[in-house]
Amino acid sequence: MAAAADAQSRPFAQALKEAQSRITAHMEARLGGNDPLHAAMRYAITGGKMLRGFLVLESARLHGVDDDAALEAALAIECIHAYSLVHDDLPCMDDDDLRRGQPTVHKKWDEAMAVLAGDSLQTFAFELLADPKIGPHALVLIRGLAQSSGKDGMVSGQMLDIAAETATTPLDLDQITRLQNRKTGCLISWSATAGAVMAGADEAPLRRYADALGLAFQIADDILDVEGDAAKVGKAVRKDADAGKATFVSLLGLDAAKDRARTLMEQACDALSPYGSAAETLKEAARFVISRDS
Amino acid sequence: MAAAADAQSRPFAQALKEAQSRITAHMEARLGGNDPLHAAMRYAITGGKMLRGFLVLESARLHGVDDDAALEAALAIECIHAYSLVHDDLPCMDDDDLRRGQPTVHKKWDEAMAVLAGDSLQTFAFELLADPKIGPHALVLIRGLAQSSGKDGMVSGQMLDIAAETATTPLDLDQITRLQNRKTGCLISWSATAGAVMAGADEAPLRRYADALGLAFQIADDILDVEGDAAKVGKAVRKDADAGKATFVSLLGLDAAKDRARTLMEQACDALSPYGSAAETLKEAARFVISRDS
Repeated sequence: MAAAADAQSRPFAQALKEAQSRITAHMEARLGGNDPLHAAMRYAITGGKMLRGFLVLESARLHGVDDDAALEAALAIECIHAYSLVHDDLPCMDDDDLRRGQPTVHKKWDEAMAVLAGDSLQTFAFELLADPKIGPHALVLIRGLAQSSGKDGMVSGQMLDIAAETATTPLDLDQITRLQNRKTGCLISWSATAGAVMAGADEAPLRRYADALGLAFQIADDILDVEGDAAKVGKAVRKDADAGKATFVSLLGLDAAKDRARTLMEQACDALSPYGSAAETLKEAARFVISRDS
Repeated sequence: MAAAADAQSRPFAQALKEAQSRITAHMEARLGGNDPLHAAMRYAITGGKMLRGFLVLESARLHGVDDDAALEAALAIECIHAYSLVHDDLPCMDDDDLRRGQPTVHKKWDEAMAVLAGDSLQTFAFELLADPKIGPHALVLIRGLAQSSGKDGMVSGQMLDIAAETATTPLDLDQITRLQNRKTGCLISWSATAGAVMAGADEAPLRRYADALGLAFQIADDILDVEGDAAKVGKAVRKDADAGKATFVSLLGLDAAKDRARTLMEQACDALSPYGSAAETLKEAARFVISRDS
């Protein structure tokens, strides 16, 4: 399995690297400014896997969406992701000093900067999506991003996560699936469907792909928390296990969690069948998600 | 002067109170949910003057904009204002325990809740503006709100404000005017022009009105910080004076600051002449801004 994934992951690795370069270049063009606020915003975006931005670019490519529009949307989702990490790392939240192997924003600057850089990253995401070059479906994209990231999406997932830490009974599988769907699934789904939305096309196959991918991604994250190497992962590991938090691994066991991730990966790939071989890179992304070591 | 303002302020006081009731009712309809996150979001919006939302409703009324659209935009700006206050009150920022005479969100709940409620209030503002009922100019409104509140607007003003606290030389009048324009002026301007934007009408007169009003508002705030009664103002006063911060009052002196606020109020009223008597309530709002005691 690992060998097969490796053999096929070369084109994906190249596609991901290309997406990272293009999104980073677009960020530098769109997010200039020499003041510390702009510097902290760029710092927060830089160095991530940019998997969400990659999904936007791939789904845009599948639907023939203009490069300018695709890059704008890809940068927007990376801004949202970066803002959530910067705020999540704050001492009053997860209190993390390290992110992607680098000091977190509040360690490199201070907490006030982390609050404000996170705030303006969120704002900038919506500014990007309101750009005329996004085209006639911009409002659908904006509405979707707000619903996926706000009080009924990512932020509510973070609230559920915080509540779980002090709950007397650990979460069961249904609850943790719901939590993770809100915390990460919604935004992965937004990313993978963004191209279809911008093109005004049917987004159902990509939504099925993303639903399976998002859950596989989270299970893989829980596996990494148990098996990962902090140096490669770029952040503290075994935090959940040490805190006695319910995770997919604690609920299913390590082997069953790996099986579940693999089944979800296969479901994600099957969902892409309407696109034929054009979606090969997205299939490889799904294989990567469950085999990654960081 | 005060007597004249009082004599004319009855209709304004009624209009403001009516705006507060309508925006609050709209909030309750749009922001249901019994979980603590929704409760904290509603708490953060409730009890404010809602001057920005009032400006949206008035400028919408002047341009015959549909009530549903106007309320959506009025609630959106109150969400942005509330988010900025919740984050601004955090211990790592201004560290305030009291807001509108009530415990701040991080005192009533905790800091994590204040971060997340602020985050999702910002998201919700953009969700509201992406609603189809806003009409064909929604993207202009969204772009304007992002530009007015983000890295080149309100948040950059907060950064300048923080930098000023540790600067070796106090700010001069030009610098403080620029800071305040970013910190509060931009969003007051967005609010007062929102109706014209939604109607696709010329926004120049309302922008001139708002530019003068925003500056008058800030000068009045500095005067309140010196002369105000904490019980009426609902938050700590004399903070700036005690911290030795440059303010319009410290730079101009109290009497000249009052003169300047009065001149700006007159300029704001003059800018509304194209609207004739239909803009009387907005003129009264300008008179209120410089005579308010809270």
